[in-house]
Amino acid sequence: MSTRIPLGMVGGGAGAFIGGVHRIAARLDGRFELVAGVLSSDPERAASSAASLGIRSYPDFETMLRDEAARPDGIRAVAVVTPNHLHAAPAIACLKAGIDVICDKPLAATPAEAAAIAEAAAASTARFFLTHNYSALPLIREARALVAEGAIGKLRLVQVNYLQGWLTDDVSSKQADWRKDPKQAGAGALADIGTHAWQLAQFVTGETPAEISADVSRIVPGRLIDDDARVALRYASGAKGGIWVSQVAVGHENGLTLALYGSEGALHWAQENSERLIHVPKGQPARILTRAQDRSHSYRTPPGHPEGYLEGFANLYSDIADILSGDLAHLDRVPGIAAGLSGMRFIAAAQDSSAANGTWVRI
Amino acid sequence: MSTRIPLGMVGGGAGAFIGGVHRIAARLDGRFELVAGVLSSDPERAASSAASLGIRSYPDFETMLRDEAARPDGIRAVAVVTPNHLHAAPAIACLKAGIDVICDKPLAATPAEAAAIAEAAAASTARFFLTHNYSALPLIREARALVAEGAIGKLRLVQVNYLQGWLTDDVSSKQADWRKDPKQAGAGALADIGTHAWQLAQFVTGETPAEISADVSRIVPGRLIDDDARVALRYASGAKGGIWVSQVAVGHENGLTLALYGSEGALHWAQENSERLIHVPKGQPARILTRAQDRSHSYRTPPGHPEGYLEGFANLYSDIADILSGDLAHLDRVPGIAAGLSGMRFIAAAQDSSAANGTWVRI
Amino acid sequence: MSTRIPLGMVGGGAGAFIGGVHRIAARLDGRFELVAGVLSSDPERAASSAASLGIRSYPDFETMLRDEAARPDGIRAVAVVTPNHLHAAPAIACLKAGIDVICDKPLAATPAEAAAIAEAAAASTARFFLTHNYSALPLIREARALVAEGAIGKLRLVQVNYLQGWLTDDVSSKQADWRKDPKQAGAGALADIGTHAWQLAQFVTGETPAEISADVSRIVPGRLIDDDARVALRYASGAKGGIWVSQVAVGHENGLTLALYGSEGALHWAQENSERLIHVPKGQPARILTRAQDRSHSYRTPPGHPEGYLEGFANLYSDIADILSGDLAHLDRVPGIAAGLSGMRFIAAAQDSSAANGTWVRI
Amino acid sequence: MSTRIPLGMVGGGAGAFIGGVHRIAARLDGRFELVAGVLSSDPERAASSAASLGIRSYPDFETMLRDEAARPDGIRAVAVVTPNHLHAAPAIACLKAGIDVICDKPLAATPAEAAAIAEAAAASTARFFLTHNYSALPLIREARALVAEGAIGKLRLVQVNYLQGWLTDDVSSKQADWRKDPKQAGAGALADIGTHAWQLAQFVTGETPAEISADVSRIVPGRLIDDDARVALRYASGAKGGIWVSQVAVGHENGLTLALYGSEGALHWAQENSERLIHVPKGQPARILTRAQDRSHSYRTPPGHPEGYLEGFANLYSDIADILSGDLAHLDRVPGIAAGLSGMRFIAAAQDSSAANGTWVRI
Repeated sequence: MSTRIPLGMVGGGAGAFIGGVHRIAARLDGRFELVAGVLSSDPERAASSAASLGIRSYPDFETMLRDEAARPDGIRAVAVVTPNHLHAAPAIACLKAGIDVICDKPLAATPAEAAAIAEAAAASTARFFLTHNYSALPLIREARALVAEGAIGKLRLVQVNYLQGWLTDDVSSKQADWRKDPKQAGAGALADIGTHAWQLAQFVTGETPAEISADVSRIVPGRLIDDDARVALRYASGAKGGIWVSQVAVGHENGLTLALYGSEGALHWAQENSERLIHVPKGQPARILTRAQDRSHSYRTPPGHPEGYLEGFANLYSDIADILSGDLAHLDRVPGIAAGLSGMRFIAAAQDSSAANGTWVRI
Repeated sequence: MSTRIPLGMVGGGAGAFIGGVHRIAARLDGRFELVAGVLSSDPERAASSAASLGIRSYPDFETMLRDEAARPDGIRAVAVVTPNHLHAAPAIACLKAGIDVICDKPLAATPAEAAAIAEAAAASTARFFLTHNYSALPLIREARALVAEGAIGKLRLVQVNYLQGWLTDDVSSKQADWRKDPKQAGAGALADIGTHAWQLAQFVTGETPAEISADVSRIVPGRLIDDDARVALRYASGAKGGIWVSQVAVGHENGLTLALYGSEGALHWAQENSERLIHVPKGQPARILTRAQDRSHSYRTPPGHPEGYLEGFANLYSDIADILSGDLAHLDRVPGIAAGLSGMRFIAAAQDSSAANGTWVRI
Repeated sequence: MSTRIPLGMVGGGAGAFIGGVHRIAARLDGRFELVAGVLSSDPERAASSAASLGIRSYPDFETMLRDEAARPDGIRAVAVVTPNHLHAAPAIACLKAGIDVICDKPLAATPAEAAAIAEAAAASTARFFLTHNYSALPLIREARALVAEGAIGKLRLVQVNYLQGWLTDDVSSKQADWRKDPKQAGAGALADIGTHAWQLAQFVTGETPAEISADVSRIVPGRLIDDDARVALRYASGAKGGIWVSQVAVGHENGLTLALYGSEGALHWAQENSERLIHVPKGQPARILTRAQDRSHSYRTPPGHPEGYLEGFANLYSDIADILSGDLAHLDRVPGIAAGLSGMRFIAAAQDSSAANGTWVRI
Repeated sequence: MSTRIPLGMVGGGAGAFIGGVHRIAARLDGRFELVAGVLSSDPERAASSAASLGIRSYPDFETMLRDEAARPDGIRAVAVVTPNHLHAAPAIACLKAGIDVICDKPLAATPAEAAAIAEAAAASTARFFLTHNYSALPLIREARALVAEGAIGKLRLVQVNYLQGWLTDDVSSKQADWRKDPKQAGAGALADIGTHAWQLAQFVTGETPAEISADVSRIVPGRLIDDDARVALRYASGAKGGIWVSQVAVGHENGLTLALYGSEGALHWAQENSERLIHVPKGQPARILTRAQDRSHSYRTPPGHPEGYLEGFANLYSDIADILSGDLAHLDRVPGIAAGLSGMRFIAAAQDSSAANGTWVRI
């Protein structure tokens, strides 16, 4: 009885994290209806997970695409929420089938997979979206608008930290295991959170560093993948910056922070307190912006009624629903292939620089 | 295709606030499906609002109850999200029809209406829930558990403030107008936010003040209803406390805060930073509790991924879904008639005390 | 070799707290030189305390006043830092001798003593200062200036809390013992910290409540003096307010906070973070003022180099040095007899109201 | 009449900043008495500055040392508070004369001057102290104790930021001018605040990085000296770290922050809120330590009565007074020649690495 966009999902079976997040995000504003899925590579788990959600279950994405295409109420978009190395195959198949893709980040596990997705997207009439959810938060959108209109003047200094502590020890879990496996994840902290930090800096500043110098580390003894990376940035404009990501910063839960300094002012933001944006106009008191000042209206409740991570994700889904319904007004604020490729380039450049003992590498 | 509980709604048409919140809360965890509604007393708005949501529209709640009862997929529960003076009629009708009620707070506009609802609830097999959403937030549930297990010792001091600034001027809006009208709202700040503060203190401490002394004010010139109230509390145990609510505390968005002090420790919480609970054990450093310490598991994402107001509301809806499905494990943490009556008593006692120049009034 | 003002002291021997604070405050800016004292009523302690400070020791204040008067380099001012009930005698003796008095708060232990001091001050050419040190902090002085120039419009709501936890248990110490003894202290939390709260509200707003209603408590079993008080305020202007003081608010160290709301904006300040003043202009983002915005220049170091409690005290001593040197520019910001009498009236009115079960009492 | 240590001063005339700070620090605890000085290289300013302080004025430090040596009450120690390039000459002269030196940081403007001071110190019976004041703050001393006793386990990550905004524009002032002049300052942000950050990291962790990689910048067009530097650190233990210092981080006042992560916990501290130390034991809630937990007792007032920058400086002066009086218990926490030389090495290595495009340089 509704006009919701029928959505399929690849990945996200019982025990997964990000699949559940995508489902809530799709549901929150009532713009999508999850109707089908290949929720797991384990057929039994796929079926039981689908049953508990009341959706159609398929053994593989090829079958889903084929069978759904035959239904009048079949899926029009697919959320890809698998481990990194399993993004490329379903995404490319969807794009070839003309089905829009909503893909979790990073784009892929390897540059080759990333290139293949990009090629498929270029050849398709379907759209490709990458869920860099933090850039959909209201105060980040406001920060971007402030930078664009000159509120901090000429950009001089950028610092983005993304600090977590959940891999401080050699933990094992469904979430941790594939992220610690180079074959499935491609890279560790660089891929999982580094690409968020990279995209956030790009999104808000509108600038991409020209070269970077990195020290990528495996801090926990025996770990096979990077769990800490410190990256220095140089912009063509002369601005300097840094990205520091860590999954062994014990005590941090999800410590993503952004600081920008320009010739005329500064901006400060922290994800764990995401509804505050500090703007310091040069020579004046700091101003505490809240959603009352967000001109993107990326929220549902009045200021002071905290929205957060899930609503940020839902903002993306809502924008995507607009776009899929033909309203392209906000196309430029939804990350897609370009953001995905840039993130992959960041990972590779950081790895190369670190391998060369910190040599500066061009982006 | 789903097993969601079919939900109806009274109120919540275009331009309403809390109706939209209830809809998101019902949708978030996928436990309810809104299928029918009397979304407005204006038939045209009711119909167009329902159409945009893709649900069945009814001209009045009597018709909805009758027609839905005739459908195999008819509503099993109704959310009442009208102005205060319009809670009693639909709630009582639902209860008489054996339909569960999820009612926004306060219980009613007058003690008489409240008593009538209570009587209907007592006579019905259906359940009645009151959406005191703040008490469904994870760290509040953890605070309650901590108090219950003695973490702060014997309760000595309680202070709950609920400060907003949106009525600082003589604003007019759909939200403001009925809240400022004594006929529709019953009371002003006392009803709209005072009952939240009252219930929160009760919920976390497990104690109800024995008597109160109040100074209830109309601060904005020309206002017909209270916009500020300062209430002193005395508990039978000897504990003292205070509730301060204001809608003219300029600059505050939704400043609900709770502070408890006992013989062995203290707890501090603020709604606008709802995922932090400060626990100070006597003689030791303050501890910053996050969802990582919440033992009620009232959340969907890992600590550090902020959830907030909508998720708190959704926690209530999720608990209600459990209860309606026969799982009563969490019945005691979902507010119902008793909480509603207690809130009405708080309003009346505060008005009486203030009218008697602050005389202490027994609860 | 210096031109410092020779200072005497009554009280402040080994083990005392506030005497040491006065000495540091007098020393910090190099405007006073402590040269003589009656540091203790115990002659041996008095002598040894004076010896360790390298100052002249006297057995009693009468002898000190007489002998110092005979010296060309004798004391010109005396700091009175005894328990409350021992303020009146030395203060009156100094005033009669034409020696300026710097007296710790509250003015006295009883209204009768207070009146006697006031009478002596009125009859003397010497000056009387009361060290309400918090009102000498730079951001408090800036807050006062902002209120005076209309930054928050017409005052509507005032709340001053002063919460400490050090008397949560039945502790015994030199500091605690006299404060818990009604004979020496006069009143408990009301006198020790309530008068600070009262003076701070007056100082910043420029208004004095017309009537108050109080609930004064002895929370700790067996305590002979108030350790918690909740006071409601009504201003002649229609503004409402509250003062809450407690010494059993476990976990608080020195939690003095001030919040003001007017028709056009709000101000927020907390002593434990005293170099931040939040100003919220109505409808605009909150502004975080620092010493960079303090126009009273009541500091020694650039903003960002924290000054605090001792420097606040030293600001008073520095202003007093100016006044004693004939520069009266800042006379109005140094508390004196009027502030002392007002504080005594606050204590008595709060006690009377509470004894009458919260009846409103005129100030 | 006092037993205070007679102190001389070189530098610190009217208009100077740090000289006044040293004077207050020396005065605060009454352990020193400033009696003589060469307060300026401008004889008139020197004389008038001395007169206003009531101290003996000398035209040059040689004369001061000679004449004071002839007095029974002559100076026993000298505070050197000149611009960096003027540290060496007076410091060496004092050391040769057997007069203890309290020197502001950095040690000198050039490595050659630094070496000369070190040589003189080694050859002298007099002591040399370097006022890295931040390491004398109580919670920093507590942090050091916590690290030493294993509270965070094996050190893994270190980040010290020191961010100021006062040189965002091309300002001119007595403070700014010499700091922006390579001849007087030696280096810019690296020397002025970088050495503080470097020393703080060393002091708290007890470890010195083995190699560093730097990007040292002149952000403001036309500036002749570094105003921003980003330095990556590698420790022999495998720990990684970073120091970021900037004087163009607009909006920052004195933003010195420290974060340490180990295998078992983390510590967080910020100078502008210096009386809070966050300790996160792995897997447990963060603990907010205050002075109530400081076991070094480096303070004068109870917790909650903010002390800060001046008191931190005074802690150094107090420790120095102890040492000069023969009490060496706290010798290890007062920075001296070794800290000074290490700071100079940090500056040179950062400059070398940056000149070699970020090549890692051994310390």
